[in-house]
Amino acid sequence: MSAAASPTPGWRRDRFDLPADLVYLDGNSLGALPRGVAERVERAVRTEWGEGLIRSWNATPDGGEGWIVRSRGCAARLAPLIGAAADEIQVGESTSQGLFAAAVAGVRLRPGRRVVVLDRTTFPTDAYVLTSVARLLDLELRWCEGPGHDGGVEAVRAALTGAPDEVALVALTEVDFRTGARYDLPAVTAAVHEAGALALWDLCHSAGAFAVDLRAAGADLAVGCTYKYLNGGPGSPAYTWVAERHHADLDPPVTGWMGHAEPFAMRLDHEPAAGVGRLRVGTPPILGLTALEAALAAFEGVEPADLGAASATLTERFLARVDAVAAAHPDETLDVVTPRDPARRGSQVSFRHPEAYGVVQALIARGVIGDYRDPGIARFGFAPLYVTLDDVDRAADALDDVLATRAYANPAYATRPAVT
Amino acid sequence: MSAAASPTPGWRRDRFDLPADLVYLDGNSLGALPRGVAERVERAVRTEWGEGLIRSWNATPDGGEGWIVRSRGCAARLAPLIGAAADEIQVGESTSQGLFAAAVAGVRLRPGRRVVVLDRTTFPTDAYVLTSVARLLDLELRWCEGPGHDGGVEAVRAALTGAPDEVALVALTEVDFRTGARYDLPAVTAAVHEAGALALWDLCHSAGAFAVDLRAAGADLAVGCTYKYLNGGPGSPAYTWVAERHHADLDPPVTGWMGHAEPFAMRLDHEPAAGVGRLRVGTPPILGLTALEAALAAFEGVEPADLGAASATLTERFLARVDAVAAAHPDETLDVVTPRDPARRGSQVSFRHPEAYGVVQALIARGVIGDYRDPGIARFGFAPLYVTLDDVDRAADALDDVLATRAYANPAYATRPAVT
Repeated sequence: MSAAASPTPGWRRDRFDLPADLVYLDGNSLGALPRGVAERVERAVRTEWGEGLIRSWNATPDGGEGWIVRSRGCAARLAPLIGAAADEIQVGESTSQGLFAAAVAGVRLRPGRRVVVLDRTTFPTDAYVLTSVARLLDLELRWCEGPGHDGGVEAVRAALTGAPDEVALVALTEVDFRTGARYDLPAVTAAVHEAGALALWDLCHSAGAFAVDLRAAGADLAVGCTYKYLNGGPGSPAYTWVAERHHADLDPPVTGWMGHAEPFAMRLDHEPAAGVGRLRVGTPPILGLTALEAALAAFEGVEPADLGAASATLTERFLARVDAVAAAHPDETLDVVTPRDPARRGSQVSFRHPEAYGVVQALIARGVIGDYRDPGIARFGFAPLYVTLDDVDRAADALDDVLATRAYANPAYATRPAVT
Repeated sequence: MSAAASPTPGWRRDRFDLPADLVYLDGNSLGALPRGVAERVERAVRTEWGEGLIRSWNATPDGGEGWIVRSRGCAARLAPLIGAAADEIQVGESTSQGLFAAAVAGVRLRPGRRVVVLDRTTFPTDAYVLTSVARLLDLELRWCEGPGHDGGVEAVRAALTGAPDEVALVALTEVDFRTGARYDLPAVTAAVHEAGALALWDLCHSAGAFAVDLRAAGADLAVGCTYKYLNGGPGSPAYTWVAERHHADLDPPVTGWMGHAEPFAMRLDHEPAAGVGRLRVGTPPILGLTALEAALAAFEGVEPADLGAASATLTERFLARVDAVAAAHPDETLDVVTPRDPARRGSQVSFRHPEAYGVVQALIARGVIGDYRDPGIARFGFAPLYVTLDDVDRAADALDDVLATRAYANPAYATRPAVT
C-alpha cells in the first residue's frame, strides 16, 4: 500500500492514446492502446526483423536483447501486478492453451485424485478446456456455484465435501465476467488446501484492475489474458503462473521444442527446461510479445494497491449514479447484479435489463462503450489507469437519456453482429 | 504449371526489404520482411486497436472486415500454396500446438488403432509433441528412417508391416530440416492409406519453397509454420489443414471458446464450430495474423509451380559451386548431404564439415547468412522469391575464401549463442 494518498482515478490517462470524447468502459474486453506501443512494434518489424533477420533471435541490430528472451521482459513487468516472481511466469500462446497446460499439470501434481472442481460462473472457455482435460485424463468434473456476493468460500467448501483425497484441482475464475462478483482468493485458496487440492486461478478480469497477490495467498497455479486490463492488444499472449514449490515436479501435457532444456541441441529425447520454461511449446509470438512488453510500461511506477483503490472509487460512483438513474425511471426493470462491497467485486459494474443489448448499443451511439453479455446483461469495465470520474458521470448521463428516450428499442438493434 | 517460361530466381525480390549487400540464405529459418507489412501492422495498432478499440472485432474504422475473420484472409492466401481449399485451413497458435491438435484428432479418426509412426529425421518438436500425444492417448510410437534420397516410400512401408489395423497415423516432416531430403508425398500418402492409416504432414520446410498439393495427394492432415518460406515474421501464427472429408468427425483435444459454434452465446456446453473452425482455441493473435496476411501478398500472382522451378535452379547452381569449391580444397572434409535429384530435395543445400559451426560463422562475417544445425551441418536455404543466382555465386565465393583462409578456426567461434 502506498503511504501517500491514493491517486485520482485515470491518473495515467496520458500514457494512452484514446479517441477524444469517447467514454471507454470496455477495457475489460480490450484495453486501450498505450502510447509507445505502435513505435515499438514498428521497430520490431523494420529494424529487428527487416534488418536483423535471423540474427535478432540472439541480439537486435540496435543492441537490444534477442527475441529468445523477449517473454522475460513481459514476465518482469507482470510479476508485481499478480504478486509473483518473474521466473514463476511464462508468457505466450492463448489463455485457453495456458489453462489446458496448467490444469493437466495441476492434476498430475495430485496423482490418484480424479475430481476437478470448477464454477458455473466461469468464462465458457474454462469450462470447455476443463471438459477436454477431464476427457483426456479420465477425470470427473464437479461444479460449484461461483463467488456469489460473499466471496464464495462456502460455495467452494460445499463442493469439497465428499470422500477425502478425491479432489485434485479447484479451477476458478476470480471475477465473474458477467456480474463482476469476486472470490475471496486467499480464503478460498486456504479452503482448497485444507482438502489437499490445488488452486488454479483464472485472472483474466483481475490483473491490472486491482492488486492480486498469488504468493501471499499461497495459490498453486494461475492463468490470465493480457488484452483486457493489461492493454496488450487484440489477441495478445497470455501468461501462466506456477508457484515455485511446484516447479520441480511440473509435468505439462504438450512438450514442445521451446520448452526443452537445450532447444538447439535438436535431440529427439525431451529434457524439460527448468521451472516454468518447460511450459513453452512452440516458437514464441514475437510481435505480440513486443507489443505486450511495451504496453506494460503503462504500469511503471504504479503501486498495485492504487489500482484497486481507484477501481473502488470509480465503481462506487457508477453504482450510485446507476441507482439514481434507475430510481428516476421506475418503469424500467434495471437490476444491478454486481456486489455492493468493493472487496467482493472486480473493476466492473453490470446490470440486467430486458433490453440490455439495446441499452448497450444506444450507449455506444452516444459515445459510451460498454458491452453486452448473454443473457441480458449490460457490462461496464473501469480500467483504473485511464477511466476518470468524469467518464463515469458522462456514462450515467447517457444511460439516463437512453432510458428516458427508450432509445434501446431502436429496431436496428434487433440484429447482432458476430462479436457482441 | 505456368505455360510461360519459368521466371528467373529472385524475380519478386522487389517485394521484400532486404539489407543491401547481404546474401540471405536463411529464409528456411526466418523469411525476409515483405514490403508493406510494417505499414499494415502500424495501421492495425494505431487505427484498428487505438481508434476502433473493441469495435474492430466486427469492423475496422477504415471500413475493413473485423478481426474476427482476419485468419480467413491468411487461409485464402495460403490455400493455393499447399493445394487446399481455404476453408480446410485454420491459422493461429504455434506449429507445435497445431501438431498436437492434428495428431490427437487424427488418432481419434482411427479408433482402435494404437500405433503412430514418425520419422527419426523429424524436427525435434514433432517428436516431443507426438510423445506427449502417445502418453495422453496410451499409444505406441514407432520410428521410421526418414526420406533418405529415394523419397522414403520403402522406409515408411517397412514401418507399416506388422499386425493389420495397428497404425492409426503416420506423421512425417516432408523435408528433413537437416539434409533437405524430401519425401515423395503423394506416394508415401498412398502407402499409408494402403495400411488404412492417415497421413499427417509437417510442411514447415515446404510451403512457399515449392508447390505442395495436399488435395491431389489425398493427404489427411497437415501443419506448418509461416515464418520460414512464407515470411510471416518471427513467431508468426501456424496453420493446420484437414481434408474436407474428415471435417464432420473432427474431434480435437482442446476445445476453446473460439472453436464453439456460437462463441458469444457464452454457454457452458461446447458445440463445435463447423469444419476446421473447431480447431480454434483461444482469442486469435491479431497482430501476428495481420502481419502474416500482409506478408502473403508477396505470393500474389505467383504460380506455385514456379517456386519449385526457381528453387531447383538455385539449389542446382549452389550444389555445382560447392562441388567445385570442395574439389579446389581437397584437404577439407566437406560432404554434401542433400539429395542430387531436385525432386527429392527441398529448397535447401546442406553439407557436413568438421568445423561446420565455424564455417557458418565465417560466412556470416562475410555477409552470407546460412545457419548451423547440430550435429555438424552447415545449412543454406533458397527462398525462390528473393534469392538470386548472383546470391548463390557470392555465397560460393565466400565459402571458397573461408576454406582457403581456414577462417572457420577463429577461436571466437568456440562459444555459441542461445540460438544457433
